[in-house]
Amino acid sequence: MIGIFDSGVGGMTVARTIEQVCPQYPLLYFGDVAHTPYGSKSSETITGYSRRNTEFLLNQGAKVIVVACNSAAATSVDTLRAEYAVPIIDVITATTRKAAEGTVNRRIGIIGTRATVQSGIYEKQIKQLRPACQIYGQACPLLVPLIEEGWLNQRETKMILRRYLTPLRQHQIDTLILGCTHYPLLTHLIQKRIGKRVHIIDSSIETARHLKSFLDNSPEITSTIRKKMQDCPPHHLEKNRFFVSDSTPPLQKLANGIFGRKINLITTHA
Amino acid sequence: MIGIFDSGVGGMTVARTIEQVCPQYPLLYFGDVAHTPYGSKSSETITGYSRRNTEFLLNQGAKVIVVACNSAAATSVDTLRAEYAVPIIDVITATTRKAAEGTVNRRIGIIGTRATVQSGIYEKQIKQLRPACQIYGQACPLLVPLIEEGWLNQRETKMILRRYLTPLRQHQIDTLILGCTHYPLLTHLIQKRIGKRVHIIDSSIETARHLKSFLDNSPEITSTIRKKMQDCPPHHLEKNRFFVSDSTPPLQKLANGIFGRKINLITTHA
Repeated sequence: MIGIFDSGVGGMTVARTIEQVCPQYPLLYFGDVAHTPYGSKSSETITGYSRRNTEFLLNQGAKVIVVACNSAAATSVDTLRAEYAVPIIDVITATTRKAAEGTVNRRIGIIGTRATVQSGIYEKQIKQLRPACQIYGQACPLLVPLIEEGWLNQRETKMILRRYLTPLRQHQIDTLILGCTHYPLLTHLIQKRIGKRVHIIDSSIETARHLKSFLDNSPEITSTIRKKMQDCPPHHLEKNRFFVSDSTPPLQKLANGIFGRKINLITTHA
Repeated sequence: MIGIFDSGVGGMTVARTIEQVCPQYPLLYFGDVAHTPYGSKSSETITGYSRRNTEFLLNQGAKVIVVACNSAAATSVDTLRAEYAVPIIDVITATTRKAAEGTVNRRIGIIGTRATVQSGIYEKQIKQLRPACQIYGQACPLLVPLIEEGWLNQRETKMILRRYLTPLRQHQIDTLILGCTHYPLLTHLIQKRIGKRVHIIDSSIETARHLKSFLDNSPEITSTIRKKMQDCPPHHLEKNRFFVSDSTPPLQKLANGIFGRKINLITTHA
């Protein structure tokens, strides 16, 4: 099984894309809603939560782990790789490659939580691939609460977005990374405010493609997954399971909205 | 010692007022920043956190517990009173009494987190005191993130406040309860938008007065506290200790801002 974890339900945008790109594999999702949000906490605390989430998914039978939370990927993925003997795919690696390859004027913007932006990981990875790039980070800590409230089209959301995006506009970026799994829900507003010529990179799409190419080249892992799912019909969405460490009606609604179908959230502790 | 807990640093508005009203007693504060916010989580999860916080404070020597978080008080205080043999003061009881006694037209508004408003506890307590009162609740889930970002005077904050307060204005309330410890930091904006004739009740002030009157009438508790603090000079703010389960620079700044002095946040796990 493909194990995916996130600080809450935002990572379901990644799970949904993986479901579309790799429909033949069952998914196991864990959303750490009891500790959400990660993005404004310290990296030590985030790493502790990431460790527990990984162990939960491994105990449930995951053969590969996708760290769908940018804040967790930015602060904890090196620790997880050092401690667990399982392939770990994160939402940052494929995204930075796409950005570094795609930019023409070599000016790239990245928006995310405070933890993600302050980690400097996007800048570091992009500069390793293409040292001449200029990276401009902007922490947008209010976007996750606005999205979780369902304020996807409110005037206040638009104003706050403009405030966050204006500095990036002034830097004349040609590429913008959505460095938080919630943000694809605001792509329509972001594109309008950053300018239509800026190429927006959605990390969920890049990560799903990266995972697919990894699985296509890892027969030993896919054969183990296949053995486990012999009784399970392919393309059957019911095979995917969604665990959360806490659940409330607004989050259930958001989960249904992301997938466009009723999601059965199973409450458990990591 | 007086033990105070909150989901984060917002409860420090209560601690600061207690410091002013009861300067002779040492305070022990615990802010559960690693799990903040409580207000959008389920009551089961909040009760679990409240239990751990209470035990931490008792182990540190607290002789009375103040539940400074409205979400915790609304969902967990009955459980805590049933499970722990220590006096437990919550931020709701004294506040509802003040509102029930003070209203003239018997129309009272309450703003708070979703957990607090949905618990219906303010309505229940006020109606027990004065059944003819009408209570109008309004969940304001975006205010805590705005305050924690330090957006105390931004245009977006004012617009979001207006959106939240308009229904309460239409109900012609004459009394408004600030049912979240963060909100006193916005009193100036709230008063302007709800109307200057509306009486705003700050739960930190009512709770501190209630605690003082409780301690004045509980010589057995105050003598235990006094015995423990014989070496400690009265009125000396250094005797107060502030623990948090996680710490970041913006929260440290907010803590200093609330107290108007440098607060030494000690990071620990409850």
